[in-house]
Amino acid sequence: MGLPKLTIIKIGGNVIDNSEKLHHFLKDFSALEGLKILVHGGGKIASELGLGMGIIPNMVEGRRITDIETLRVVTMVYAGLINKNLVAQLQNFQCNAIGLSGADGNSIKTVKRAVKDGLDYGYVGDITSDSINVSAISNLLSVSFIPVFSAITHDGNGQLLNTNADTIASSLAQSLSKLYAVDLVYCFEKKGVLSDLNDPESVITLINRTSFETLKQDGIVADGMIPKIKNALEAVEKGVSAVFITCAEDLSNFNHKKSGTKITL
Amino acid sequence: MGLPKLTIIKIGGNVIDNSEKLHHFLKDFSALEGLKILVHGGGKIASELGLGMGIIPNMVEGRRITDIETLRVVTMVYAGLINKNLVAQLQNFQCNAIGLSGADGNSIKTVKRAVKDGLDYGYVGDITSDSINVSAISNLLSVSFIPVFSAITHDGNGQLLNTNADTIASSLAQSLSKLYAVDLVYCFEKKGVLSDLNDPESVITLINRTSFETLKQDGIVADGMIPKIKNALEAVEKGVSAVFITCAEDLSNFNHKKSGTKITL
Repeated sequence: MGLPKLTIIKIGGNVIDNSEKLHHFLKDFSALEGLKILVHGGGKIASELGLGMGIIPNMVEGRRITDIETLRVVTMVYAGLINKNLVAQLQNFQCNAIGLSGADGNSIKTVKRAVKDGLDYGYVGDITSDSINVSAISNLLSVSFIPVFSAITHDGNGQLLNTNADTIASSLAQSLSKLYAVDLVYCFEKKGVLSDLNDPESVITLINRTSFETLKQDGIVADGMIPKIKNALEAVEKGVSAVFITCAEDLSNFNHKKSGTKITL
Repeated sequence: MGLPKLTIIKIGGNVIDNSEKLHHFLKDFSALEGLKILVHGGGKIASELGLGMGIIPNMVEGRRITDIETLRVVTMVYAGLINKNLVAQLQNFQCNAIGLSGADGNSIKTVKRAVKDGLDYGYVGDITSDSINVSAISNLLSVSFIPVFSAITHDGNGQLLNTNADTIASSLAQSLSKLYAVDLVYCFEKKGVLSDLNDPESVITLINRTSFETLKQDGIVADGMIPKIKNALEAVEKGVSAVFITCAEDLSNFNHKKSGTKITL
C-alpha cells in the first residue's frame, strides 16, 4: 500500500448551475483529507452567454460542435468565469486550489478531432494515451496545490481545444494511478446506479465486471448508464483503485463513509 | 550576488491587441533565460465584448468602474480568453507557462476598495503590503513553471476583484525581491522615456532619483511619465534591482543587451 491516496472528483452542470448545492459541495470538497483534484464541466451559462452573443448552439448527436466563436465562449466561461469562481470559493474554505486548463503547465495535451464522414466537430480535443502530463500535475500536488481543471485543453501548437470533462477526469485518474492510489468520483443527479429507477434510494452499492454482466442481462441497468459503467470498469482495469458514481450532496465525510455505487475489479 | 535572477515583464493592450506584435513578443519572452513571470492587462476585447452584451463601460477619471456584470466580463476575458491563449502560445514556444489569477494558489489577495466621497469603484481590489504570496509563487518557480498573471485577484473570502496590472507587476517585483534579484520590465508603445517626444529614438538610457529631479525641473519628463517613473523609483527603493521602460519589439536578447530606459537607485 505504498502509493499515496488521491481523490479525483468530477462535477457537472447540475452542481455548477445551483449556487446552494455548489456551496455545499465546495465545502465538502475542501474538507476531504489527502491529495485531491477537481474536474468541472460547463453548465447552462456557456450556452446562455453564447446565445446572448448571437451564437446558436450547434449540436450533432448530443455533442456540441465547437466552431471558433464557440471555442471563444467556452474558453471564457469554463476556464475563466467558472474556474476562477470555483477557485476563489475554495480558497475561502482554506482549500489551496489552483485553476488549470490543459494548456497550463502543458498538463493535458490533446489531438484535434479529425473530420470524419464529412462531420467536423471543430475545435474539439481528443485525449490520447499520453495526454496527461503526470510530472507537471504531481509537481503541483507536491507543493500543496489542489488542481481544479476546466475542460479546455490544448494541442501543444498554440491551439486551445474543447474536451469532454468526464473523459478528462477518467484519463487523469488512469494516468495518475502510476504514482497514486486513485479514487475517481463522478457526481450525478442521482445517489448512484439505481436498481429501480422509481426508487431514488435503491442504490447498487458495488458493481464489478461479473455483476455488471448480470445487471445488463437482467435489464436492471440500461441506456445511458451502460457506457458510464463500461468506462468506469475500463478505468479500474487500467489501474484506478475504484470509481464511485454518487451525488454531490452525499460527499461529506467521503473519506470515512463512501457513498453511491462503487465500481471496482 | 547570491539571489537567483528573476525577470518580471508586464504587457498591456498595445501588445495584446496586435496579433503579430504579440506573436513576436511571446517568442522573445520564451527565449529569455532564467526565471521569469509575465503579467498582462486587458486590451480592447473586454470593452468590445461587454458592449456586445449591452454593458456600457463606466469610467471615472480614466478608471473603469467594475460593477458585477463588468467583473464577469473581465474575469472571462482576462483570466479566461486572453490568459489561456497566451499560455497556449507560450507552450508552443516550449515555455512552460501556467496561467494564474490571484485566486489561484491564493497568489495575490487584495482588499476591495472602500467607497469614498460617494464614489464606489465596485469590484476593484487594491494591493496591500502583504498581498503577494511569495511562497506560493516561489513554489511554482521551483518546479519549473512560468507564471502568467491576469489582472484578476481575490479577497480570500470567495470574491474575485479587478486589479490594476501595472500595480500587480510592481508589487510582485517588490515582494519577490526578498528571494530573487528582480528586473521589472514595462512594455510601452515607445522605446523608453524620451528626452524629445518628437524623436522616438531619443531614449534616456538611465534614470535615478537625482537625475529624475533634474529631468522634472528641466521639463524634459512631464505629465503621464512622472507617476510611472515615481512608481519605478519606489520599486527600486523597495528592493527591485532595476525597472526598465521599453517596448515589446526591443525585448529580443534582453538578457544580454538591455533596451529602453533603466531606472535604478
